[in-house]
Amino acid sequence: MPNPSEFEVIERFFTRASTDASVIVGIGDDAAIVAAEGRLALAVDMLVAGTHFPRELPARAVGHRALAVNLSDLAAVGAVPHWATLALSVPSAEEAWLSEFAAGFFTLADQHGVVLIGGDTTRGPLTVTVQLAGAAPELPLLRAGGRPGDRVFVSGTLGDAAAALELLERPASERGAEEAFLVQRFCYPEPRVALGRALVGTACAAIDVSDGLLADLGRLCAASGCGAEVDLAALPLSDALKARFARERGEQFALGGGDDYELCFAGAPGDVAKIQALAANALTRVTEIGVLTAEPGLYGRRGDRTVALAATGFDHFASS
Amino acid sequence: MPNPSEFEVIERFFTRASTDASVIVGIGDDAAIVAAEGRLALAVDMLVAGTHFPRELPARAVGHRALAVNLSDLAAVGAVPHWATLALSVPSAEEAWLSEFAAGFFTLADQHGVVLIGGDTTRGPLTVTVQLAGAAPELPLLRAGGRPGDRVFVSGTLGDAAAALELLERPASERGAEEAFLVQRFCYPEPRVALGRALVGTACAAIDVSDGLLADLGRLCAASGCGAEVDLAALPLSDALKARFARERGEQFALGGGDDYELCFAGAPGDVAKIQALAANALTRVTEIGVLTAEPGLYGRRGDRTVALAATGFDHFASS
Repeated sequence: MPNPSEFEVIERFFTRASTDASVIVGIGDDAAIVAAEGRLALAVDMLVAGTHFPRELPARAVGHRALAVNLSDLAAVGAVPHWATLALSVPSAEEAWLSEFAAGFFTLADQHGVVLIGGDTTRGPLTVTVQLAGAAPELPLLRAGGRPGDRVFVSGTLGDAAAALELLERPASERGAEEAFLVQRFCYPEPRVALGRALVGTACAAIDVSDGLLADLGRLCAASGCGAEVDLAALPLSDALKARFARERGEQFALGGGDDYELCFAGAPGDVAKIQALAANALTRVTEIGVLTAEPGLYGRRGDRTVALAATGFDHFASS
Repeated sequence: MPNPSEFEVIERFFTRASTDASVIVGIGDDAAIVAAEGRLALAVDMLVAGTHFPRELPARAVGHRALAVNLSDLAAVGAVPHWATLALSVPSAEEAWLSEFAAGFFTLADQHGVVLIGGDTTRGPLTVTVQLAGAAPELPLLRAGGRPGDRVFVSGTLGDAAAALELLERPASERGAEEAFLVQRFCYPEPRVALGRALVGTACAAIDVSDGLLADLGRLCAASGCGAEVDLAALPLSDALKARFARERGEQFALGGGDDYELCFAGAPGDVAKIQALAANALTRVTEIGVLTAEPGLYGRRGDRTVALAATGFDHFASS
């Protein structure tokens, strides 16, 4: 059955028995119905083959990333993800591809207690749109709220995914351990959901780093009405990135590359120790990388020197 | 500025001041946050250029249809639509196209009190995915629930959109009044939200007719564990469809065509008058077209003759 029908695609690959008490009507009717309480956080992110990921990316990674980028959005506001819908357009209904895609999606969904409640599958160019809804905290983390003097933090390491894009073309068999690590970081980003929840009530402002640190920190600064100075030596680079690329190149990946799906957030100077404790409790590394400034603009500090940083990042409509 | 950036696209075309008290955080942060209460209905539908609509379809119609197909899904469960997200992939950020698209989307959104709370725009093949959330009734309309003997109804007229697809290739200037009407029905379907809400508590089962009456009535029957007999002479065909096509051809469009976005629903024989009164109150024409049967399968009745009808309808993965 190399070409299952639309109905069979949904039935075979995306319908699973759910015991989640919040789901009153799941996949299979015109709309899903869930029991929601209080404030709801909603995010939507679309992945287009050839724009957001190479067409030859393994299906399992596509499934993982499609959900991960939305989990990262909910993490950035400190919400608890719960219900996902999936709109999937594929050139053909290849069983092996769909099966791997579903495995990538559901493995991550299960880790975060997310249930797939609805979807739409069609034949067309490969695009994946996931919408994710969950419970929002009473005081969500927002891009606005940062104040001059606040310390700036990022989770995990930056630049790995951008570096991986340069390596993806090489056959997997020819990749060394460091290259394999970087490619893994691109294919299977770890959304910082536990960290986002932990930071509610402590961080002053937050954003997820999807288009590059400068672009996203720039958005946090714009929303907060301030600027930022980043200590370039403090940028957290993975051992693999440092081993494979020169420091300066690594910093470029960290500042301008995209697809990190780490959290960037601001906190009061007096809360630095508390933030580190919260992060440790969420099993997530966070690094203090700079400070918010009263004057707008993004600046980098390297020892005694200060350089202006252009907040370009990745723009899907920029002329290439 | 023929090529606005992603940020500008969202800012200029899709961000509007909202006074909707339920929206706590709208477009512009990592996730939207809304105040939800009780049960939530969620639907997602994706339109792919070349698959769901001709590439040359006017942008205003694309914007209208992308929201309409989701409104129709919520109508089918009797929900009250409220919050939409939009994932839009376009080959280039053409101002005229985006402006018209937004006009089509927001005109319909305003008619139904729907606010756009989030989105994602990117460069890629033309695809539009809208997710719509709203308040679900305590006892939603479902596909299951129909019983043998229940009368089968449809709203509006059927087959117009399918007929229009044969006419779209002709220049608008060469279309007569009837052809213009049919094309209008394809471009600007009217989701039956008021009717769906009115039917809650009275209709036993409901579905929206998006893939053709036979396909969707077949789904209602499958979920309800019964079959149906349709009085072919009772199928509601528009005057335009009847004027432009022979009766038999019109019936084929009505039975097998897609894109009607009407509601098909079942009601107890004793509720026929009540259903007609509810429909009149919702300013929507409904027509009784048949009856649910104990034995499975779809049959058509033409006078004394009964013919088996194949529940094929439209399948996006069927070999073409």
